[in-house]
Amino acid sequence: MQCSFCGSSAFYPRRHEGVSLCKKCFKRSIENKVRATISKHKMFRPRDHIAVAVSGGKDSLTLLSIMSKLKAKFPLSKLTAVTIDEGIRQYREEAISLAEGLAGSLGIEHRVFSFKDLFQVSLDEIVQRQKKLTPCSYCGVLRRRALEKSARMVGADKIATGHNLDDEVQTVLLNILHGGVERLVRTSPVLVDPDQQFTVRVKPLCEVYEREVTLYAYVTGLGFQQTPCPYRSGALRGEIRDILNELEEKHPGLKHTAYSSKMKLSGLLSGRKVELRSCRACGELTGNDLCEACRILMRNHEIECLLRET
Amino acid sequence: MQCSFCGSSAFYPRRHEGVSLCKKCFKRSIENKVRATISKHKMFRPRDHIAVAVSGGKDSLTLLSIMSKLKAKFPLSKLTAVTIDEGIRQYREEAISLAEGLAGSLGIEHRVFSFKDLFQVSLDEIVQRQKKLTPCSYCGVLRRRALEKSARMVGADKIATGHNLDDEVQTVLLNILHGGVERLVRTSPVLVDPDQQFTVRVKPLCEVYEREVTLYAYVTGLGFQQTPCPYRSGALRGEIRDILNELEEKHPGLKHTAYSSKMKLSGLLSGRKVELRSCRACGELTGNDLCEACRILMRNHEIECLLRET
Repeated sequence: MQCSFCGSSAFYPRRHEGVSLCKKCFKRSIENKVRATISKHKMFRPRDHIAVAVSGGKDSLTLLSIMSKLKAKFPLSKLTAVTIDEGIRQYREEAISLAEGLAGSLGIEHRVFSFKDLFQVSLDEIVQRQKKLTPCSYCGVLRRRALEKSARMVGADKIATGHNLDDEVQTVLLNILHGGVERLVRTSPVLVDPDQQFTVRVKPLCEVYEREVTLYAYVTGLGFQQTPCPYRSGALRGEIRDILNELEEKHPGLKHTAYSSKMKLSGLLSGRKVELRSCRACGELTGNDLCEACRILMRNHEIECLLRET
Repeated sequence: MQCSFCGSSAFYPRRHEGVSLCKKCFKRSIENKVRATISKHKMFRPRDHIAVAVSGGKDSLTLLSIMSKLKAKFPLSKLTAVTIDEGIRQYREEAISLAEGLAGSLGIEHRVFSFKDLFQVSLDEIVQRQKKLTPCSYCGVLRRRALEKSARMVGADKIATGHNLDDEVQTVLLNILHGGVERLVRTSPVLVDPDQQFTVRVKPLCEVYEREVTLYAYVTGLGFQQTPCPYRSGALRGEIRDILNELEEKHPGLKHTAYSSKMKLSGLLSGRKVELRSCRACGELTGNDLCEACRILMRNHEIECLLRET
């Protein structure tokens, strides 16, 4: 199998484009794709200070690595790697050290912010006490909030996260199958708040297939965490991931079509602003009287008080 | 197992509502559901002449049967059963006789319109000559057009079709996974054209699960066609049907949630009018210069001429 671009020995058939690639051309194609995504969506300005969310997984380490390469052309920009330590024992430690390792080797400042410091409670503690939602639901809400707080603390203008194309497509299907279609208005590759109440969020990997992110991480020798999170469940997102992988196998390019549909849908929905107000407890933007993060934290506090009394 | 409503012996556990039903209460629940759907979406007016599209399958015979019951309360309304004969040999004949039988027993006029009469070509002939699309794609476009023509010919104000909840949810997923998200604007339970260039279309069964339509047809002893269409392929819609059935099995109510999402999405997209113009060949509304039906028919005519020349 020959590389469709340079003729040397290919290692990967990219079925959805009907081409084969050698390692060098594959790496370049991913970096070009990310560059094009950034440019198409006008994700950054030359003087941006970008907080790169780094969990230690393949997506975020690939993101940090590519962002660091791209930064070379923008000497006035600044990157800070930010890791959120949710407090998941015997899991997060490895991820933090991997994130630290890569950031260090790239000469990028690395900061760790923990749920415990930010919210006075770890995810392990919340999961022990609250059973209404899945651990992923609690974690998702609080991680987003933690990232927002951390970005402000490091003085960043933007938050870059490692969401890939599969994540985006899964989210659309999840929002349809599981309810929450209003959220589709808020799943753009660049999430800007015109009132500047929250930090702009960008997803530079949103047009790269998940399997190609993994491949990039392998090919470039990025040591990433492979142990799955102990709280990962057979939740609907996991089932949807498997379904999409099977469909893509039978219909190469299907994920890409689905991603285009998502983008068109975002376009059709643009201007349909979700009405937001300030949470009465913390002041952050929310669709309700009380934001999701405060709900979880207050419920946690209530349970703690009850436990103390008994 | 006891019926949750009347206490008599139940035959069907409706998992997504957590109830069990006897045959009588099940039948009533379906008829009430259809009545509520019609009322919620203001599908009909008392003097409407409704063309009920009857293919001879479980959905359309159930629709005709329930519509006939509901008609009793609206003496000024009129129903005409309309069957489209696509021209699929050794398949459509049985369906036509089943449709005829039910319409006759209900005292409803039954009219058959064939592709051959309307377009001078049968589906069998098109499928023999054209291979670019799947037979279902040719059939879908021409059947919609045939229905429109037939409704005008019988003088109906509205067309009622047997689309069920599963069809609606499959369509949303198909439009996302296979492209065509713009079509979501046009998948409402009531499709009205403000310029009155096409007949209003309604889907009274759109809130009933497919398996419950089948069950209703069995319970009420409707003899419906069970042989699948010979052109039915393992196309994406079929795969999506299986996927949704498996997901519903694991997460009862998921199809219902997905249907609600579809409705919310339609609401969010409402007002986003798809720009339509008149087809330059037949004058019907289309998004393009030439409508899909004319494209298929012209291509067919071209091939016919070529074949004659050689």
